[in-house]
Order: sequence, then C-alpha cells, then structure tokens
Amino acid sequence: MIGLDRLSLNQMTVHRLSVAETADLCARHGIPAIGLWREPVAELGVRESAAAVRRAGLHVSSLCRGGFFTRADAAARRAAHEDNLAALEEAAALEADTLVLVSGGLVPGSRDLGLAQRMISDGIAALLPRAAELGVRLGVEPLHPMFCADRCAVNRLADALDLAGAFPASQVGVVIDSYHVWWDPRIGADVARAAGRIAGYQVCDWVVPLPADALLGRGHLGDGSIDFRALTGPVLDAGYAGYVEVEIMSEKVWDAPADQTAATVKDRFAAILG
Amino acid sequence: MIGLDRLSLNQMTVHRLSVAETADLCARHGIPAIGLWREPVAELGVRESAAAVRRAGLHVSSLCRGGFFTRADAAARRAAHEDNLAALEEAAALEADTLVLVSGGLVPGSRDLGLAQRMISDGIAALLPRAAELGVRLGVEPLHPMFCADRCAVNRLADALDLAGAFPASQVGVVIDSYHVWWDPRIGADVARAAGRIAGYQVCDWVVPLPADALLGRGHLGDGSIDFRALTGPVLDAGYAGYVEVEIMSEKVWDAPADQTAATVKDRFAAILG
Repeated sequence: MIGLDRLSLNQMTVHRLSVAETADLCARHGIPAIGLWREPVAELGVRESAAAVRRAGLHVSSLCRGGFFTRADAAARRAAHEDNLAALEEAAALEADTLVLVSGGLVPGSRDLGLAQRMISDGIAALLPRAAELGVRLGVEPLHPMFCADRCAVNRLADALDLAGAFPASQVGVVIDSYHVWWDPRIGADVARAAGRIAGYQVCDWVVPLPADALLGRGHLGDGSIDFRALTGPVLDAGYAGYVEVEIMSEKVWDAPADQTAATVKDRFAAILG
Repeated sequence: MIGLDRLSLNQMTVHRLSVAETADLCARHGIPAIGLWREPVAELGVRESAAAVRRAGLHVSSLCRGGFFTRADAAARRAAHEDNLAALEEAAALEADTLVLVSGGLVPGSRDLGLAQRMISDGIAALLPRAAELGVRLGVEPLHPMFCADRCAVNRLADALDLAGAFPASQVGVVIDSYHVWWDPRIGADVARAAGRIAGYQVCDWVVPLPADALLGRGHLGDGSIDFRALTGPVLDAGYAGYVEVEIMSEKVWDAPADQTAATVKDRFAAILG
C-alpha cells in the first residue's frame, strides 16, 4: 500500500530526545523524514536544527505548530500573529512541507463557537501574504471533538475543509491525523473531497481506556481501535503523495528506549500499511 | 425560553440516591418529571418504582438504557436482544416517554465501524415489533466521538438521524444530549432535520479539564463551555414539546447534598433556559 520510503518520524513520538538525537535516530533506522516541533527546534536553534536534519539526510515533513488564533483581546491576537509569523520563518528555514496549525478552542470568556471559527479564519488570512513570500504551506489540523473547548474548535475534516476552502489550496491545506478523525463515518467521503488539499497525514492508534490527559491516549499502529488501511486508502486515492508521519503521544511510548520505538514504528508501518 | 414545568431530573444527577429517594427529592422541589436508570429501578423493583414515581406525581421522561447491540457472536447478540426486550417491558411499566439506546462501540475483535453500525441497525429493527406492542418509543442517543471505540459507535446527531431514518419516526427517535453534541458546528441544521424525531433532550455542561473517566466530565449548566440557548433554540423550533432532563455525571455533583443539587439544577435551568 505504502512504502517505508514515505515514513516520517514525528519527534513527539520520542518526546524525550532533542532534535539532533531524533535526527540521528532516523538516520540510524533508515527513516527518510522527520516531523519537528517548535519548542525543541528553539532549544537547539533554528539554523542548527536545519543543519542537523540536513546532515542526517532527512526531509522535514512538517513543523508543529502555529495557530491558537482564538484570543479574547486585540493585544493577545497580535501576539499570536507575531508568534505565527515567527513559526512561518522557522518552517521556511527548515524547508518543512507544511506548518501545522492547531487553531485554538473557544475564545476565553466566550461560549460562541462561531466567533472562535471566524477568529481562526481571520487569523489564517492574516498569515497568507508572508506565507506566500516564504513559500510555506499551512496545514489546518482538525483535532478530535474532545479538544473543542480548550484546544481546537475545528474538529471534523469536513469543517477543516470548509475553513481551508476559503483560501487557495496551494497556501492552505489540511492535515489528517488518524487519532482525531477515525471515528467519523463520513471520513472517507471527506478525504475524497480533500483532494489537492492534503498537506500532511499523521498516524497513531486510539487506545482505550483514555488516560487522564486525553492527549496521551495514543499507541503504536495496531495497538488500538483504528482501521488504518480503511483510512489510508482514501488518502492515497485522493492523490496524497507526501510522507506519512507516525506521531504518538504516550507516556508509555516515551518511556521506551528510542531505538526500540523506532524499530516498532517501522515494523508496524510495514505490517499494517505496507 | 422554557419553563420549569418542563424540567426533568435524571436520577444519574443524584447517583447515590435510590429511585424512591430521587422521586421524593423531585416532589420536594416541585420538579415534575424524572429520568430513570434500569439498575436502580431493578434494585427497588419495576412495579415498586412505577408506584413510587406515581405517588410522587412524577412523569417519567426516559428510561436509560437499552442498546449495546455490537457483540462478537450470535449468543451474545441474543443475550443483548433478550435484555433489550426486558428494558422495553420496564419502559412500558414505567410509562417512560422513551427508552434511551446507547448503541455499543466497535464489535470486540473488530475495527470495522461499518459492521458496528449495521449491527446496531439490525438490533433496533429486531426490537420494533415488541416495542410497537408495548407502545414504547426508542431514542437513539449519539454519544460524543470520544466514546466511539468502547461505548457507542453513533456519534453525531446526523448519523443518529441516518440510522433512525430507516424506521418510523413514531417508533425510533433520537435523544439529544448537550454534552455529546455541543461541539458540532452543524448541530443546528441537524436538529432542524430531527423535527418529529426528537425523543428526548438532556442537558449538562462540558467542564475542562476532562477527568480520568471522561464520562464524568460534566457540570451544572453554566459551569462549562456550552451555549445552552444556542442549542435549545433549534430543539424548540423543531417542535420538541417534551421534558428537558438535567443529567449530570460528576463525582463532585454526586458528593454534594442532594437537596443542594436539586436547588442548583432548578436555579440554573431558570437562569439559563428560562
């Protein structure tokens, strides 16, 4: 179905490693691409991070993350905009395929979902001129509905597509993460509709019971509830030709030796998506 | 917007009380209706429970719950069917407006959402002859997507309506619970489409952060993220004329004195939905 030449390791899967250590890990295991996060990139420095991944021969499939557009006052919105402009620069320096956007939840002090969604749309629009100059593509990631209140008020792929659809596909795509969308019985049709807009595809499994921090209820492919072939088929049929990122947020996975994690990532990817 | 004469207290809100105690509580606070659960009803006995709520002058707005149709083998499916037939008898004896159905998650050993959904539809169909004889209306309740794997593979109102739509509206309706559907930006349009099918309306708030057991992340109206007027407007516009059940699953609410809980339920209902 899909070869290991399209595997990317998102560094969140080996959360305790630095950018340089993660890049070395990928090189050691023959993983051709990496997904990066801004905080560890900032720790090493953007230029040094770009050099580290280039030295390791890696492609950067994504940078996480910009967004968090939903703020209660103009000053906070300006600060978020400035931070997003910085994220654009970083994504350009890293030559990342996409800057992943996590949009932000309800506006503090408000229960108005429509307001949050308009603020998200406005926030994206404000980034486009600079994103175009830098050649960075934005990827709107719908997050699971359980994160609507406090993290991301864009929760189904259908809604992310409605949002992205107001902008050129070359500038604003969507990022599909199995953890967030697998439950949706309309996901196949929505993925088909996403053709030309898929800026990233991330995979990890849904493991029950959810832990206290529902962000961390994830597992290696095959350890949970998700039918990965059923989801990946439509993604490929829609023409997605980019990397497939394995991004697992899980205390258990983080506690495992990184080389064991990388080996398991490759084994499961080959067994389930190969 | 909606008067206290349409308030129903779901006994799950005062989880530590018996049916008789909950009925007395409602009578004491002038709450005209009650939502019951099968386990406490069984503890007291169905006939005795029916007598207790009648003595207290209460209408039974719902009985929770039938369903759990998704089973791995024929014997387990037969057992579920028998249990659901018993639930129908209980709903009839209690003169409940609806028997709430929680459909069941993925079939054990399977990741096939479509299989789960076909099994749910088949399970409902098998109940309809007896439900018609007893005059019991079934209410399919979509549960929040975070419960898809292990509890209920019907997660959006849109999907519950597609499922219910295969059956007569007089026999199979939908139950709308604010906790499960509030995040959905299409909920207003879906509620309008539910006209004639709304078999129950339950309210409680979404409180972050979610606790370890995400079933219990609920609070009194006004303590969380939900815009209740925005959701209730479409429910009323769709012609729903039944009771509005306050159903709060929360250790904190359960630990409060029941009379205090009942008073808060009334106050918030009047303040937010009045």
